[in-house]
Amino acid sequence: MNRTEYWHQMIANRNVAALDDLLAENSVFHSPVVHKPQQGKAMVQRYLSAAFMVLLNDSFKYVREVQSGNHTILEFQLELNGIQVNGVDMIQWDDAGKITDFKVMVRPLKGMQQVQLEMAKMLERFAAQTS
Amino acid sequence: MNRTEYWHQMIANRNVAALDDLLAENSVFHSPVVHKPQQGKAMVQRYLSAAFMVLLNDSFKYVREVQSGNHTILEFQLELNGIQVNGVDMIQWDDAGKITDFKVMVRPLKGMQQVQLEMAKMLERFAAQTS
Repeated sequence: MNRTEYWHQMIANRNVAALDDLLAENSVFHSPVVHKPQQGKAMVQRYLSAAFMVLLNDSFKYVREVQSGNHTILEFQLELNGIQVNGVDMIQWDDAGKITDFKVMVRPLKGMQQVQLEMAKMLERFAAQTS
Repeated sequence: MNRTEYWHQMIANRNVAALDDLLAENSVFHSPVVHKPQQGKAMVQRYLSAAFMVLLNDSFKYVREVQSGNHTILEFQLELNGIQVNGVDMIQWDDAGKITDFKVMVRPLKGMQQVQLEMAKMLERFAAQTS
């Protein structure tokens, strides 16, 4: 199974724990909403786990996959609070098959606003659990 | 020269007129801001021409290219009104090398707001010129 197939299996199984094995120690996360990157595996895991909880509802599906070299682009589509959200996961891998860079973009503006709202709530829940 | 090289040459030369040759009659444009697609070559040409005028300033550069089959993903970066804009051109080609589908996504939220503002101004200018 190649790394993109592994990613799809993880998503299909809603297997958040598998992220632990997949992220490089020095990985970086780029949010669709905020400019500032989140640095390091712990932060990337936190943001991706929250994104899984928010985005992976029953309507979520991948609709396009473009891959070359160490880059995978996965376009997704879902409905969130009745609003259409269309986006891309932009994944950069190292040669060991770990994720070093994960960037998300979403459209349209109304979709981004819903993602922003629900991500903020989820990250607050995470913070409450660990404090 | 393959179609992606042709695209880069067009962008480097700010050659808006070349779009006319590159777009399929039934092409579709998906804005980063608005959900509703723009249908047909004339509309796609209008929106892409406006996007060229707005985005292709001296700071514009492509920073990642991922290509497979009939899909090209081009990630770009620029500064607009002092705000960082990061985005992707998601291009789908037909077998004749014409663009059938062109989707743009941008991040972060502040960047999207600048793109929205400047695109609205530019499309108004176009409308004033043709009315």
